[in-house]
Amino acid sequence: MTADITWRAKGEAKRLAILNAIPEKWRIQTPIPPPAEQVDVTGVYIQQFLNKREIEITESDAVDIVAKTTSGLWTAVEVTEAFCHRASLAHQLVNCLHEIFFDAAIEDAKKLDAYFAEYKKPVGPLHGLPVSLKDQFHVKGVETTMGYVGWIDTFEGQKDDPRRGVEESELVRELRDLGAVLYCKTSVPATLMCGETVNNIIEYTWNPKNRHLSSGGSSGGEGALIALRGSPGGFGTDIGGSIRVPAAFNNLYGIRPSSGRLPYQGAANSMEGQNTIISVVGPLASTARSLTLLFQSVLGQQPWLHDPLALELPWRDSMVQETLSLIEESKKGSSKLSFAIMTFDGAGRIHPPIARGLNIVKQTLKRLGHDIIDWNPPSHATALTLAAKAYAMDGGNDAKHQFGLSGEIKPPQVIVGGPSSGPEMLSSQIAALNVSKREYQKEYMDYWNSTAALTGTGRPVDGVICPNAPFAAVKPAEYNYIGYSAFVNVLDYPSITIPVTFANKTVDSLPSDVSMDEAEPYIEWDYDADTYHGAPVGVQLIGRRLQEEKVLTLAEYIGEEVARHDA
Amino acid sequence: MTADITWRAKGEAKRLAILNAIPEKWRIQTPIPPPAEQVDVTGVYIQQFLNKREIEITESDAVDIVAKTTSGLWTAVEVTEAFCHRASLAHQLVNCLHEIFFDAAIEDAKKLDAYFAEYKKPVGPLHGLPVSLKDQFHVKGVETTMGYVGWIDTFEGQKDDPRRGVEESELVRELRDLGAVLYCKTSVPATLMCGETVNNIIEYTWNPKNRHLSSGGSSGGEGALIALRGSPGGFGTDIGGSIRVPAAFNNLYGIRPSSGRLPYQGAANSMEGQNTIISVVGPLASTARSLTLLFQSVLGQQPWLHDPLALELPWRDSMVQETLSLIEESKKGSSKLSFAIMTFDGAGRIHPPIARGLNIVKQTLKRLGHDIIDWNPPSHATALTLAAKAYAMDGGNDAKHQFGLSGEIKPPQVIVGGPSSGPEMLSSQIAALNVSKREYQKEYMDYWNSTAALTGTGRPVDGVICPNAPFAAVKPAEYNYIGYSAFVNVLDYPSITIPVTFANKTVDSLPSDVSMDEAEPYIEWDYDADTYHGAPVGVQLIGRRLQEEKVLTLAEYIGEEVARHDA
Repeated sequence: MTADITWRAKGEAKRLAILNAIPEKWRIQTPIPPPAEQVDVTGVYIQQFLNKREIEITESDAVDIVAKTTSGLWTAVEVTEAFCHRASLAHQLVNCLHEIFFDAAIEDAKKLDAYFAEYKKPVGPLHGLPVSLKDQFHVKGVETTMGYVGWIDTFEGQKDDPRRGVEESELVRELRDLGAVLYCKTSVPATLMCGETVNNIIEYTWNPKNRHLSSGGSSGGEGALIALRGSPGGFGTDIGGSIRVPAAFNNLYGIRPSSGRLPYQGAANSMEGQNTIISVVGPLASTARSLTLLFQSVLGQQPWLHDPLALELPWRDSMVQETLSLIEESKKGSSKLSFAIMTFDGAGRIHPPIARGLNIVKQTLKRLGHDIIDWNPPSHATALTLAAKAYAMDGGNDAKHQFGLSGEIKPPQVIVGGPSSGPEMLSSQIAALNVSKREYQKEYMDYWNSTAALTGTGRPVDGVICPNAPFAAVKPAEYNYIGYSAFVNVLDYPSITIPVTFANKTVDSLPSDVSMDEAEPYIEWDYDADTYHGAPVGVQLIGRRLQEEKVLTLAEYIGEEVARHDA
Repeated sequence: MTADITWRAKGEAKRLAILNAIPEKWRIQTPIPPPAEQVDVTGVYIQQFLNKREIEITESDAVDIVAKTTSGLWTAVEVTEAFCHRASLAHQLVNCLHEIFFDAAIEDAKKLDAYFAEYKKPVGPLHGLPVSLKDQFHVKGVETTMGYVGWIDTFEGQKDDPRRGVEESELVRELRDLGAVLYCKTSVPATLMCGETVNNIIEYTWNPKNRHLSSGGSSGGEGALIALRGSPGGFGTDIGGSIRVPAAFNNLYGIRPSSGRLPYQGAANSMEGQNTIISVVGPLASTARSLTLLFQSVLGQQPWLHDPLALELPWRDSMVQETLSLIEESKKGSSKLSFAIMTFDGAGRIHPPIARGLNIVKQTLKRLGHDIIDWNPPSHATALTLAAKAYAMDGGNDAKHQFGLSGEIKPPQVIVGGPSSGPEMLSSQIAALNVSKREYQKEYMDYWNSTAALTGTGRPVDGVICPNAPFAAVKPAEYNYIGYSAFVNVLDYPSITIPVTFANKTVDSLPSDVSMDEAEPYIEWDYDADTYHGAPVGVQLIGRRLQEEKVLTLAEYIGEEVARHDA
């Protein structure tokens, strides 16, 4: 065999092994119609393969599930089996899983049920809740490929590493202590540096709402799986938008916390040791309150005692209560919140569905009596330049090394490791980059402070609302602008994606009154109303650094009000 | 003039300008006796130049001073003048100042008094408190040389920088808001990378308790000034021991907080943008409660809204109360605290006075009924290797550049920028270093957790006590081991120096029962009881990352009990 055949064959073998890990009883027997015939496989489409009880369980959110599993109303086994079944279907429909370990999950669920039967109490706040994991987290007995063919049958590419098959990431250990059930790991683009999810194992993870489009990346498997309710919530990572973008593309909530809140310890990663822009862990789910449940539960495990990069910042209920008070006062008319809305960052022209989504949020906030200001921040082009330098710091060497392990080709969408990679940076260049980044953060922080003079509240804005990406999902290989997500990573602010609406070809046409100059970027982004029809539209709500409790509370409120507006 | 004469002349001119900034009335008229005649210039020696009222004011600690200045018992002007006078004397005795701006200080003090007279309340919790600053902080109208001849008449070495003379560091802004009076900046070794304080401007900062020895570094000017009570408290920085070592060498308390607690924004620094081991800001003072006052007051300014690297971690009184409860319970015998004591790190053999100091602390804690365990942590040699790599990351280029501005020679003690500097590191080497550092931090954290099984409290140890340096102060040019301080910077743990005792030639001889093998390192460190006689002995108390409130509370308790034991 040539090297080419070898890596293709290895990827193919792994792809088949994933499919074969799906129990026979859960395989879809009839051919799956092509996207042109069945563009949307969520909701009623996937329900046809499930019984009523399974639908009831899997369409409950994480909060409702734990209410039942921690009180004994539902068993961990029945909940786990329902999600294993639905995750099996999801993978067959859109290629969203890298690892399937249902047998171990059901064994774990049995132990949880036995515990509950004996002690009449749950193991922890996530007792019996299935939780999916992006394929960076190590689970004992399970492989981690992170989308690299060269990582098959190894530990992070190393054949004889003693951690292979036995290592567990810190988050995994904490989730087990909380009573969660681990059952699958979700697809990622090789290198993680991509707004789509594509690799030489599972190939491409499609968007369940519109199978012509991408599920986003790099936590695209999470996004697709949760969109199909094959998981009530899972954990992704975000270095440039990799939680928020798949959340937005899949009608979900997803939070990128500030670095240091959730434990990354013991997870695989790209460009390990690059610490200018640090990748962070965060949950994705169908409701904001599910994110809060997952986030708060993990903090209850005191990750700062087990992860040297985690901060001793327990869940601050005081911050939640302060935020709720502001909301309550606004309902009485005695006070209000204030938000900035940014519809254009000066470089990335947004598609009509995103513009409409932002307007829905704006009108909702106005209806509620809140204050809206424009956002005229320090140059976002500067932020993007800083991010691009950080991502390219190693000259693509990590990506090249990992692809080189098998000789596999780099998917063209992946933004690092290509032939045009520069040389790796020198200490002096990295130091200069770190200084520039800090100066940018300072400038942005001062700008945020300065809005106290512009709002009607006397405070700086409570949050900033803007796109996650210029498009509602994306056509394969057309993810060509990451400015809307990556600036948040440069700033290290918490940001949460709020689902708003869906692209609609009858209303989301290019505005007729746009001049050719203004219209041109739309053409560049290749918008067409038919292709994007049905794609989810989300926005991000950005808060001040380390104020995760505030953005989670605001997101739940705004998301509910938007849904009411839309209804 | 040759280049050599030029930089020597410039340094000399600046040295004279500093002396000339001392008002005539405060100059010491009689020749200062050489160290051989007057080894100790603290206490009664310096008091001869002061009146009773000045002595009363300057020998009060920061807490007692603000009690009087915030209640109108003492005016800001009389307090400021007393400290300006005493700081003038201190500088003449040991060369501890880089900048003197008494006129501006007295003007500021007058404004504070006028405010108090008008509003019958203080400007803030530090109303009227003189605070000294290491010569990295920018104060408007005042130069910052950081010990470089090439920075004279520039802003951080740049001649035409518009920030020259007008910039203020964030900490300075906050101190002004708190009501503090700024009046002088203290000496540092050029590059800051040195355990002594030596540069081509003020030359050498001597130890006030023993003028044959060093005041430590790099915050050596702070240490010497506060030891002479020329300041009630000031701020230094620490990347490898630079707060704790001068505190220990000068019979003071000094805290190195975890990174992100106090604002570094807008201060000059070495190797800007090196973010593997981050230099931190912290206070030094004669009492632990003064450190708490300064630390807590700055946090009250919410530095996280103005410094992008500061963490939103307000002062946590709950952590203080928990710690006080443990102490109170231990007094009742219903509970106890537990500490580890490390007397040898496996590489740096300590001098007899340090061994005795550690034993005093051990006996004190035993007398109080607390639990003591040995400390057998992951290799400290590894920590030192990691630190050394971080400090040398830029190949000494920053130091070489700064020295090169004037052509001045590098003081031989400075550990960076010498001819043996390696090349600057590559991105891949820095990334590998960051990973190694994180792994070391993880190993250390796990070890700390594991002590829960060894203590009698069921908790891991409440603190670790160890030397700051192998010696009580140091002979010039003999600071040859930084392992005891630098490992804390690798870990990013809070650590506070507690003053314990003084080297005493009658008791601190080399143990007679030591074998030649064991004795050999003492010889290497060149201990002799006569030379070190009178030098202060401090220990450091190390806590878990970001638990500054706990170490401050414990240090106050332990320091008081040690003083009682010693008395």
